[in-house]
Amino acid sequence: MDYQELKNIYDTPLYVYNFDDIKSRYEALKSEFKARKSLICYAVKANSNLSLLKMLADLGSGFDCVSIGEVKRAILAGAKSYKIIFSGVGKKDSEIKEAINLDILMINVESSAELLRVESVAKELNKKARISIRVNPNIDAKTHPYISTGLKENKFGVDIEKAKSMYLKAKNSSFLDPVGIHFHIGSQLLDITPVHEAAKVVAKLLNELKAVDIDIKFFDVGGGIGIRYNKEEPVNLYQYAQGILESLKGQDLTIVCEPGRYIVGECGELLTSVIYEKINDKKRFVIVDAAMNDLLRPSLYGAYHEILSLKNTQTSNCDVVGPVCESGDFLAKDINLPDLESGDLLVVKNAGAYGFTMSSNYNTRARAAEVAIEAGKHRLIRKRESFEDLIKNELVEDFGAKY
Amino acid sequence: MDYQELKNIYDTPLYVYNFDDIKSRYEALKSEFKARKSLICYAVKANSNLSLLKMLADLGSGFDCVSIGEVKRAILAGAKSYKIIFSGVGKKDSEIKEAINLDILMINVESSAELLRVESVAKELNKKARISIRVNPNIDAKTHPYISTGLKENKFGVDIEKAKSMYLKAKNSSFLDPVGIHFHIGSQLLDITPVHEAAKVVAKLLNELKAVDIDIKFFDVGGGIGIRYNKEEPVNLYQYAQGILESLKGQDLTIVCEPGRYIVGECGELLTSVIYEKINDKKRFVIVDAAMNDLLRPSLYGAYHEILSLKNTQTSNCDVVGPVCESGDFLAKDINLPDLESGDLLVVKNAGAYGFTMSSNYNTRARAAEVAIEAGKHRLIRKRESFEDLIKNELVEDFGAKY
Ligand SMILES: Cc1ncc(COP(=O)(O)O)c(C=O)c1O
Ligand SMILES: Cc1ncc(COP(=O)(O)O)c(C=O)c1O
Repeated sequence: MDYQELKNIYDTPLYVYNFDDIKSRYEALKSEFKARKSLICYAVKANSNLSLLKMLADLGSGFDCVSIGEVKRAILAGAKSYKIIFSGVGKKDSEIKEAINLDILMINVESSAELLRVESVAKELNKKARISIRVNPNIDAKTHPYISTGLKENKFGVDIEKAKSMYLKAKNSSFLDPVGIHFHIGSQLLDITPVHEAAKVVAKLLNELKAVDIDIKFFDVGGGIGIRYNKEEPVNLYQYAQGILESLKGQDLTIVCEPGRYIVGECGELLTSVIYEKINDKKRFVIVDAAMNDLLRPSLYGAYHEILSLKNTQTSNCDVVGPVCESGDFLAKDINLPDLESGDLLVVKNAGAYGFTMSSNYNTRARAAEVAIEAGKHRLIRKRESFEDLIKNELVEDFGAKY
Repeated sequence: MDYQELKNIYDTPLYVYNFDDIKSRYEALKSEFKARKSLICYAVKANSNLSLLKMLADLGSGFDCVSIGEVKRAILAGAKSYKIIFSGVGKKDSEIKEAINLDILMINVESSAELLRVESVAKELNKKARISIRVNPNIDAKTHPYISTGLKENKFGVDIEKAKSMYLKAKNSSFLDPVGIHFHIGSQLLDITPVHEAAKVVAKLLNELKAVDIDIKFFDVGGGIGIRYNKEEPVNLYQYAQGILESLKGQDLTIVCEPGRYIVGECGELLTSVIYEKINDKKRFVIVDAAMNDLLRPSLYGAYHEILSLKNTQTSNCDVVGPVCESGDFLAKDINLPDLESGDLLVVKNAGAYGFTMSSNYNTRARAAEVAIEAGKHRLIRKRESFEDLIKNELVEDFGAKY
């Protein structure tokens, strides 16, 4: 990859995704489940760029969406509606209605109140809504508390007992068709045994449902496969899949999984240019043109992202920080980098997931452009925002003045 | 305020700002400095809505900007260029150039490397750039570490000694005109003594500069006045101003201050509708249609925002959470609210500062609309984002499919 060329053409800050690597990762995971019917529903929230979704749709991927906006993205990118799942703890009636009308694979229901909403919207439309129920297996995913979602004190899903009664209610409704069962215990999981434990717990419920003639067709194990940001031991995909397959022995159903970070995380980089260096109280700061508004993860989760320089001269300790007016605006702390000059390029690694999607216009900073690398070629997949984009919706009054 | 009417007209989530209250706060602060020449430069980063800036510009306010985007906003809103300050630790050459060409009041320089950049850009333009230097007085502001900026280990400003040598350099340059001195030690300061201490330290430097014929005209004390989110004792503006005035006895200069949060924080509310309630493991969750993408402060800083219901029936403990797929997505934890139903309105208080400006499209959620209340009337000051807005810059390839 000629980073300098990318900078010359597209400027920085710039998100760059390697589509070939993304494809390989999709294929690798898909093939681990080849012994069974399986559907990979890429979690759109991790990186929702339309060109990226299109590439995955062309490979046959399904999509896990958490808002009607994400569902629209998937469809626009060419996804088959019968490969789209709509999850999330708070769906508005209007969103449920659109999802039913679009005839997606299933709506993943997260509470009994929601089950009633889905039923009543389906009734209004005189349709039968396919649903799954998100079970909260009360298993500790051992990850950052903000992205741990499978404990009973989290807002997600319902406990086993409640799930059972909800399935019975769904079965007896003329407007609900319970076709799936779902869990997702957290993100960035490096130890996959909690997923296997959860699968066992949920598979047991599956059998109990069968006994009362509720025939589940989709077993959705969520996402969460961890990636390597630093020195983490990568998840063994074979073991990941085998543990799930084992819990489903003798069952005839389709395994669904919803990886986000695993598919795109390691395949994206954020290019940023050094503005200048600065030393305060012996502390060295490398000030760059990307900031917390471009990549929130370090600030929000204390996340580590490796940062590479294109120079290989002697290094010294520094913080890499952005131009935003907060001490919380940093991309890395206490890392080693060579002496850098204005214009030098830095590469923030593993920024493909939860990078651009969480970016904002804080400090009236336009969001970065996005570029795809595919078969050795680069192409723009999202234009850099302009100042005009930022203010467009505010031009509701006459401002007399001009810029 | 008839919240229900606002919801019916504009839908939720909705930011509502009381312009009359904002005006009063601006006037109150301005009048505390009436004994001296003073300029209030509202910190645009706190809330950059164009209509809000226009209202402040009409009152005579100046503006503190931290990106060329913010400078453009101020000018578009009708600000006088000689009342605009451009601060920030990382200004690109292109930004410096625009700022000089726009002939703003001063560029606030944060490092010696930056001083060189400003000089060289000014030279290229054959102009003299008015500058101030941000001094880092190494004083603990006693606030959240992410918004504490006056300690020597922070990325902001330069220490007293370095500032002195930079002023000398600027004085001897044909392209730099050192007209100001600046500090800002942190945000949401409830104890204002650190500001007074800082003012004393910096005023001492002022005298030393005078002794070498560097005549500073603007003494900029930054922003940071804390507000009442919960039970905090409000800052006494009279004392705040008096402490600053005292440190400047006998000096003939203009006092500049850069309040952001103080001007707008308590004058904004985020209206949100309940989607439904849910109980997991005895924990009650109120799921609403606003989320961390709309208001990041609770998640990022653990910030407290009071949340009011329009009902006054008996209350019980709950968490108020949004639809986003993270446990980090909450607006309030362990607060008391009445039993709520789908559609009920909640009012998130004190959301005028660092609310909308930090919002994002995470989970493909369109950003909220903004409404102004002025003289008893409401009007839209930012349209709700549409799905089309969100994908506009991604339509660089042909997606065949249609939504
Ligand atoms: C329901 C659900 N599925 C899938 C994912 C994707 O997780 P990951 O990116 O860790 O694979 C998430 C992430 O929060 C989720 O909430
Ligand atoms: C230089 C500068 N001035 C003013 C402000 C405004 O601070 P506040 O909103 O606390 O008044 C900030 C905030 O970060 C700042 O960095």
